[in-house]
Amino acid sequence: MDEAARDRGRRTLAGGTWWIAPTPFTPDGSVDGDALEHAVRTAVGWGVDGVTVLGVMGEVTSLSDAERDVVLAAVARGAGDVPFAAGCSAASASLVAERAARAQEHGAVAAMVAAPPLVRDADTVVGFFHAVGGRSPLPVLLQDEPVATGVQLAVSTLVEALERSGAVAVKLEDAPTPPKITKLLAKVPDLTVYGGLGGVSAFAELSRGAAGTMTGFAYPEVLRAVRLALAGGDRATAASVFDAFLPLIAFEGQPGYGLAIRKEVLRRRGALTSGALRGPVPSAGIDAVTAAELDEVLQRVGLEPSPDRLDVDAHLAARVAA
Amino acid sequence: MDEAARDRGRRTLAGGTWWIAPTPFTPDGSVDGDALEHAVRTAVGWGVDGVTVLGVMGEVTSLSDAERDVVLAAVARGAGDVPFAAGCSAASASLVAERAARAQEHGAVAAMVAAPPLVRDADTVVGFFHAVGGRSPLPVLLQDEPVATGVQLAVSTLVEALERSGAVAVKLEDAPTPPKITKLLAKVPDLTVYGGLGGVSAFAELSRGAAGTMTGFAYPEVLRAVRLALAGGDRATAASVFDAFLPLIAFEGQPGYGLAIRKEVLRRRGALTSGALRGPVPSAGIDAVTAAELDEVLQRVGLEPSPDRLDVDAHLAARVAA
Amino acid sequence: MDEAARDRGRRTLAGGTWWIAPTPFTPDGSVDGDALEHAVRTAVGWGVDGVTVLGVMGEVTSLSDAERDVVLAAVARGAGDVPFAAGCSAASASLVAERAARAQEHGAVAAMVAAPPLVRDADTVVGFFHAVGGRSPLPVLLQDEPVATGVQLAVSTLVEALERSGAVAVKLEDAPTPPKITKLLAKVPDLTVYGGLGGVSAFAELSRGAAGTMTGFAYPEVLRAVRLALAGGDRATAASVFDAFLPLIAFEGQPGYGLAIRKEVLRRRGALTSGALRGPVPSAGIDAVTAAELDEVLQRVGLEPSPDRLDVDAHLAARVAA
Amino acid sequence: MDEAARDRGRRTLAGGTWWIAPTPFTPDGSVDGDALEHAVRTAVGWGVDGVTVLGVMGEVTSLSDAERDVVLAAVARGAGDVPFAAGCSAASASLVAERAARAQEHGAVAAMVAAPPLVRDADTVVGFFHAVGGRSPLPVLLQDEPVATGVQLAVSTLVEALERSGAVAVKLEDAPTPPKITKLLAKVPDLTVYGGLGGVSAFAELSRGAAGTMTGFAYPEVLRAVRLALAGGDRATAASVFDAFLPLIAFEGQPGYGLAIRKEVLRRRGALTSGALRGPVPSAGIDAVTAAELDEVLQRVGLEPSPDRLDVDAHLAARVAA
Repeated sequence: MDEAARDRGRRTLAGGTWWIAPTPFTPDGSVDGDALEHAVRTAVGWGVDGVTVLGVMGEVTSLSDAERDVVLAAVARGAGDVPFAAGCSAASASLVAERAARAQEHGAVAAMVAAPPLVRDADTVVGFFHAVGGRSPLPVLLQDEPVATGVQLAVSTLVEALERSGAVAVKLEDAPTPPKITKLLAKVPDLTVYGGLGGVSAFAELSRGAAGTMTGFAYPEVLRAVRLALAGGDRATAASVFDAFLPLIAFEGQPGYGLAIRKEVLRRRGALTSGALRGPVPSAGIDAVTAAELDEVLQRVGLEPSPDRLDVDAHLAARVAA
Repeated sequence: MDEAARDRGRRTLAGGTWWIAPTPFTPDGSVDGDALEHAVRTAVGWGVDGVTVLGVMGEVTSLSDAERDVVLAAVARGAGDVPFAAGCSAASASLVAERAARAQEHGAVAAMVAAPPLVRDADTVVGFFHAVGGRSPLPVLLQDEPVATGVQLAVSTLVEALERSGAVAVKLEDAPTPPKITKLLAKVPDLTVYGGLGGVSAFAELSRGAAGTMTGFAYPEVLRAVRLALAGGDRATAASVFDAFLPLIAFEGQPGYGLAIRKEVLRRRGALTSGALRGPVPSAGIDAVTAAELDEVLQRVGLEPSPDRLDVDAHLAARVAA
Repeated sequence: MDEAARDRGRRTLAGGTWWIAPTPFTPDGSVDGDALEHAVRTAVGWGVDGVTVLGVMGEVTSLSDAERDVVLAAVARGAGDVPFAAGCSAASASLVAERAARAQEHGAVAAMVAAPPLVRDADTVVGFFHAVGGRSPLPVLLQDEPVATGVQLAVSTLVEALERSGAVAVKLEDAPTPPKITKLLAKVPDLTVYGGLGGVSAFAELSRGAAGTMTGFAYPEVLRAVRLALAGGDRATAASVFDAFLPLIAFEGQPGYGLAIRKEVLRRRGALTSGALRGPVPSAGIDAVTAAELDEVLQRVGLEPSPDRLDVDAHLAARVAA
Repeated sequence: MDEAARDRGRRTLAGGTWWIAPTPFTPDGSVDGDALEHAVRTAVGWGVDGVTVLGVMGEVTSLSDAERDVVLAAVARGAGDVPFAAGCSAASASLVAERAARAQEHGAVAAMVAAPPLVRDADTVVGFFHAVGGRSPLPVLLQDEPVATGVQLAVSTLVEALERSGAVAVKLEDAPTPPKITKLLAKVPDLTVYGGLGGVSAFAELSRGAAGTMTGFAYPEVLRAVRLALAGGDRATAASVFDAFLPLIAFEGQPGYGLAIRKEVLRRRGALTSGALRGPVPSAGIDAVTAAELDEVLQRVGLEPSPDRLDVDAHLAARVAA
C-alpha cells in the first residue's frame, strides 16, 4: 500500500461514530445478504459515520469465505456513500492480505485486524502486524481484542505493533479501555482511537481522547450524541445522555450474551427481521426470560423501538417532562 | 464438618447484602488491621448483612499467612454480631482446610473457596471441591470466579461441585451472571446464589432468583435497597434505585482497575484512610485523571461521600426534586 | 448421517498408523497442490494406513476455503486406495457441517473436529459436538487438542461429547496422553483412540490401548513398527524400536517449532521440495542452527533420509552390528 | 541489595547442574522436613552443584508459610556447603521481597521468581520484575514458566525484565527452550541460562549455550555427565549419554503427571520414603499401571535404582558390553 492510500485511510478513519453490523441469518441458517443490506441502510439513516462488518459481533469465525463475500457485497450496497471497514483477521499475515484484497474489491476503506488467536508472545504479535502492514492492500485498523483472541496486548506492544504495521487507527476492546487510552495517547499523541465494547465506557473513552466509537450498540444515535456534546465542550449534556441510556448499554453490553440481545433490539427497530445467531450451536435468539428483561430495560430508558432515527435531545426532554 | 454445622451455615448464608472488605495498607505498605476493623465497623453501620474478607478484592494472593491472621482478627473485631466469611482458596484442598480452620478460630461462619488457579479440567475441579467439602471445618461458599483463577465452570460442573462439596451457597462472578443464575436454579431450585462483580448486574441477578449480593461496592446501601424493593415486589422502585446509581456502579465495576476506585470512594466516605494497593507493584491509589472522573461520576449520581448510612429513598426523592 | 455410514466410518477408523500431512507451499507462498499429492503418495509408499489433512500441522487456520479445496483435491489424488480424513474444525457447527460436506465430495472418510477456539465451558463443548454429530454428513473423528484451541477437556466431558456426537474415534493431543487413554477406555472400553503429539508417547499410548497413532512424524514406518510389535505381543522389540528413534521423535515433537523441523526432514526424504511455512509470518523453514542440530540428530539415530520405505528391522540390525 | 551481593549471586549462579527438590509429605499429609533434609543430602552426594526448593515441582502453591519455613530449614541442613536457591514467587513484589528475606535468613543464595499468575500484559510483567529487583534482599533468578503462571514471555519482554530487575540468571521452562536460548544469548551474550523442563531438551539447551540445567530429574548425574562432556568438547559422548537415558527423561518429563513419577523414582533410589503428593487432591503416588510402566522404562535404560551416585561412564560401558 502506498503512502497516499494510507493518508486517505487516515482521513477516513479519523473518528466519528462507526457502527458494527451483525451478520443476519435466514430461518434456515444461511447468511442473509439482503437483510444485511437493509440493516446497514437503516443504520446509515441513523447518522452513523461508518460501518464495520466481519467483526467478532458479525460472528466472523463462523462464516465461510463465500459468506464473507455475501457480507461484503451487502454492506457495499447498503452503505452508499458512507465508508465501511471489513474484519480481515486470520492466523497468518498471508491470509489477512488476501482477505484485505477481497474487501478492497468490494470497496472497503480499511482492514480491521486483530492478533492471531492464542499467539504465543509479544514479539510474535509485533512480527505479525509488521507482516500485515507490508502485505495488506488496505489501510490497517488494528483491533485490540483480548477475549476473542486470547491475546492481551501491553501498551508498549500495541504501540510497537502500530508503528511496525503503519496502522491508521486502533479499536480498543481491552477492558478497562479508558486508562489504556490515556496511556496510548501519552505515547502516540495523534493516534486515532476508537472505543468499543458496546459503548459501556464510551463517555470515559471519548473524555480521555478517543476520536470515536466503533461498536454495534443498537442505538448508535446515543453514542453520537455523547460524542458531539463532548466535542462541543458540553460535558453535562454528554453525561446526561450517556447516563440516561446506560441501563440499555450495560444490558446489551453483557459479554457473550449481548449479541443475542442486540439482534433482538435491532429486530424490534426494524433493522433486522430475525434475531437468529449461528453461534457454536445455532439459536433463534434470546429466550423468554431475557425478552422480558429487555422489555423492562427499554421501558426503564423510555424507548419504543422504531426504525426512525432517534432524536436524543427530544427524547430526553420528553423524559424530563414526564 | 457435621450436618448441624452445615445447617447453621445454610441459615447464615441464606442471602442478603454482604460486603466484601478490601485490605487496607499503611503508607509503608503493611496490612493495616486497625483500618480494616474501622472499615468493617463502618460498613456494618451501613446495614450490611454480612462481611467477606480475603477475597480477590482483598488482594488475598498478595498477603502472607501472618497478614491473613491480621485481617481475620480485624474483621472479627469490627463485625460484631454480623457474620463474616473468609476466603480460603488455595491450590490444594489440604491448604484450604488449614485456612478454613484458622478462619474458624477467628469466628468466620464460612470458607469461600474458588477453583485452584489454572486447574486443568472439569473433573479435577469436581475432585478438588469434593476433597474440600470433606476436609473443611467450615461450611463452604463456592466462588465461581473465572478471571482470577483462569478456570471457567460450566453449569453442570458447578452443580456437581456443589453436590460433591456440600457447599451451602455459591457466589457468581462469571459474567454474564444473570442467565447462569437461571440455569443453576433450574437444576438446583433451593440453591442460595449471591451475585458479585461489583453489583453491575445486581438488578438482573436478584430478579432471576439470587438471594443476595456479595460484593465490595462502596455503597452497599444501594444494593440493599434494590434487593428489598424486589423482595417487596416493587420492581419499579428497585429499577429506579439501580439505574440512578448505575453510573457509579459501572465506573467502580471496571475490571482490574475498579479496586483502586473503590478504595478511593471508601476513603472519601471515611471508611478507609488510604487508597493504597499492594498490587503486583504497590501504588498509592488512583491517578489524577481517574480522580477527576470519579469527582464527575459522584456528581452525576448526586452523591457527596459521607460515613453516614445513605438513606436511598431520601436521596432519590431529593434528586427528583432538584 | 445414517447408521450405515457411521459403521463404515468405524470400520475405516479402527486404528492403524495414520499420517498427518503438512501443507506444502511454493516459494511465493501459495498452497502447492502437486507437492501435497506427491508427499501423500510418498507416505502411502511408506505403508501408512490412512492420511489426515487440514489439521493443526497442516496450518489449517491459515488457509482460505479455496486453498482447503486444493488440499482436498491433492490428497484425494495422492492417497489412492488409502482412506483419508479431513480437518473440518470451525467456530460453529454449521460451518463444520459445510466443511464436512465439501470433504465428503472429495472422498474423505471422516471429519476431524476439535472444540471451537476458546469456547467458554464444558456444557458448550458438549452442545457443540452434539450439533456437529447431527449435521455432519461424514463420521466424526473427535480431536482433543488443548493447545491450538485453548480448551482443555476433562475425561467426563470428552465421553459426553463422544456420546452426544456419535463420533467414531478420538484423536488425543492433551499431554500426558497415556493416563487419559486409560481413563477413557475404562469408561468406553470399545473406543478407538489415536495417539498424536508427534508420537512422543506412542509406545505408552499403544501399550495402554490406543488402536493407532495419527501424527505427522516424518518416519511413520517407525510408529508402525512399534504398533505391530506391540500387537504381536513383542514388547521388547517395540520398546527397542521406539527408544532407538526417540531422539528424533522428541526433536521433531517440540511444540510450536516442530513443524518446521518436520517439513525439513520430509524435504530431505524427498517427500517435499520446500520446508516453507505460512505461519503468522511466512518463513522459508528452519534456521542454520536448527539445521545443524537436525544433522546431528539424524546421525545419532543412524538415519540417512531417503524416499524409500524404511526397513526398521534391518535398520536396527545394522545399528547393532555397527 | 548492593552490587557486591549481586556479584556473589552471579558467581554462585554461574551454571552447573542444579537439582530441584520436591517437597516430601508424611503419610498424614504434612510436610516432612527430615525427609527433605535426607533427600537433599542424598542428591548432594550425587554431585549436584546447587539445590533449588519451593519451585513448581515442590508444589509450592500448596504450602503454608509455616511449611515454607520447614522446607527452608530442611534444605539448609541437608545442603551443607552446596548453595541453594528458593522459590519466592508471589502475586506482589512486596510478598516476593518478604519471602526472599525469609529465604536469606535460612541461607539461600538466590530468590527464584516467576511472573505473577495470569498477569495481564508485558508491561505489568516488566514493572513487577523492576519492583522485585528493587526490593529483594537476595539476587534474583528469573523463572520463565508459562504453564504454572499462564504468562508467556516474549524474548524482548524477558530481556527487559532481566535488565530492570538486575536478575543474575534465568531459568527457562517455556518449551521449546533451545531456540529461545539462542535468541536470548544473541541479545545478552553473557547471560547465565539454566535449562529446565525435567531435562527433556538438556542436550540442545547446553549445546546452544545454557550454562547449566536446573531441574528435578531423579538422576542428576546424567545431566551432569551431558554437561561436562559438552564442556569438554566431546559432543559424541554427550549425545550418547543423553540418548541412552532419554526414555526415562521423557517418561519422567511428562507434564502434570511427571512429578508423581519422579517422586517414585526418588523413593526407589532411597532419597524419599514416600511418593505422596499434595496436589489439588492428595494422592499416595503413582497408580499400578504407571508403576509397571516405570519398571519397564527403568529396565529399558538399564537402571536399578540405588542411593549411590551413578557412574554414568561405567553404566554405559556395561550396557554396551551387555
